[in-house]
Amino acid sequence: MTSDRRSFVRQGALLGGGLGLLRAAGAGADTTRNATLDTIHELHSTHGNFTERPVPEDVLQAILQASVRAASASNMQSYSIVAVRDPALVQKVCTYAAPRMLLYCVDYNRTQATADHLGLPYHADSVVDFVTGAVNTTLAAQTAVIAARALGVDSLLTNGIHRGDMERVWKLLELPETGCFPLIAVVLGYATEPPRERKGRLSGPGVIHDGKYHRLTREELDALVRQHDDPGTHLALNDAWRQEWRKHYFEWFFGTWQARAAKPTTSETQMLRLLKRAGFVETPRT
Amino acid sequence: MTSDRRSFVRQGALLGGGLGLLRAAGAGADTTRNATLDTIHELHSTHGNFTERPVPEDVLQAILQASVRAASASNMQSYSIVAVRDPALVQKVCTYAAPRMLLYCVDYNRTQATADHLGLPYHADSVVDFVTGAVNTTLAAQTAVIAARALGVDSLLTNGIHRGDMERVWKLLELPETGCFPLIAVVLGYATEPPRERKGRLSGPGVIHDGKYHRLTREELDALVRQHDDPGTHLALNDAWRQEWRKHYFEWFFGTWQARAAKPTTSETQMLRLLKRAGFVETPRT
Repeated sequence: MTSDRRSFVRQGALLGGGLGLLRAAGAGADTTRNATLDTIHELHSTHGNFTERPVPEDVLQAILQASVRAASASNMQSYSIVAVRDPALVQKVCTYAAPRMLLYCVDYNRTQATADHLGLPYHADSVVDFVTGAVNTTLAAQTAVIAARALGVDSLLTNGIHRGDMERVWKLLELPETGCFPLIAVVLGYATEPPRERKGRLSGPGVIHDGKYHRLTREELDALVRQHDDPGTHLALNDAWRQEWRKHYFEWFFGTWQARAAKPTTSETQMLRLLKRAGFVETPRT
Repeated sequence: MTSDRRSFVRQGALLGGGLGLLRAAGAGADTTRNATLDTIHELHSTHGNFTERPVPEDVLQAILQASVRAASASNMQSYSIVAVRDPALVQKVCTYAAPRMLLYCVDYNRTQATADHLGLPYHADSVVDFVTGAVNTTLAAQTAVIAARALGVDSLLTNGIHRGDMERVWKLLELPETGCFPLIAVVLGYATEPPRERKGRLSGPGVIHDGKYHRLTREELDALVRQHDDPGTHLALNDAWRQEWRKHYFEWFFGTWQARAAKPTTSETQMLRLLKRAGFVETPRT
């Protein structure tokens, strides 16, 4: 119990308290804080409460120009960013009401077209290409999110594009069937109100591993459960679990929120079918 | 020809010249630039030329604490970050010599262990879980890269962990066989010298699409080829293609650099096999 308690307190400190103290000590004296770090620590997701106020075009352009600065394998930029400025279309694509959306797609069509144009052979046709492309794409998306925050623009990273009939995304934005896969959307705008709280994050055992992978002990799992039950950590998505009279947050999380995940996947998902159609899952010739 | 030329000049301006002008006009007057945007525009990859100077532990901790601030679906943080401080191990894992490495893995083991601990059902067993996890993981990795840059630490995002026998990564860092997949490594340290140039990026047709997807025209493809042949754009990885007497950069890129991609993938890749082993590709029961 004592060691649990110590672990809990130590983890609690890592959940923001420690950094808060560093910050209070004065930015001048602290070589591990600066404006960029502050921007990162101010990141938060706006869950749908965007006003109708549009993002000025010069600000949107600055976000896009920052986004492409992310590293990409062989400087290939194996992605496409579709900038949507029509709120009605934004909602159709990602299910959120917001003035602007950047849809980030893994995309090898530009590269393929360039090779074809010059009569050179090229094939992006395996899961390796998808994974490399997905990493490149997401690096660019997160750079846009951080740039937006720095410019006072609220954002939401959403995989809402994967909900319901995914083919609608291809149809609505006229995406190529092959070599292209819509991965994540960055919804942009201005929130109706500032966030109520700074969400907690884990940065202890099970998330950051020192030197090699560490499997959580029973004591660490107990601490994890308690941390999520503690309203002060802001690790929980909401307090619905209390209203449902559940004993632990995770009972709501696994029982209600992630109910989909309660049964094993026994048939091909829509996503796998569309990844295959896009040519991103190699099918060995027999 | 005239329209090609215009398109080329316009694209050239987008490749950094435009922002350069904005910057020269004075930061005070420009509402689309600030310290964070400057950090992003200063991002560059250090390709192996790291000194032996270690990253101070407080700086490494600040990078890690920033990294976990990235958004993650349902605040699940479905990743593990293995912090490696042994340069010999860094090299074994990612093939680069550097003092520090953060290995970013898609990882559902903490979540699974929590559900098991409470006797609750949970299965992360489809490609949807892998894609959601890969996005979460990469958002955190790019946040680390930007935090590092802001703290004067040079970095390299590398998928070198996917080269050669990937199973070595599991063995060296004792990763769980299932529910875990090493995605990308952030190598950290201090470069022997500043970067010689700021790499070019495309931000025109084929990368940023207005409103809906745009397929490149022959004229745009011609412009793309010329842009990559122009040493002033710094879009090319290097000038090996000139030394090989190739007519275009892309002849070297597709013919030599991406030679692997010159033939279609006809057998299962190591990555697909390991994704299946990890449980990230659903196999319909028949």
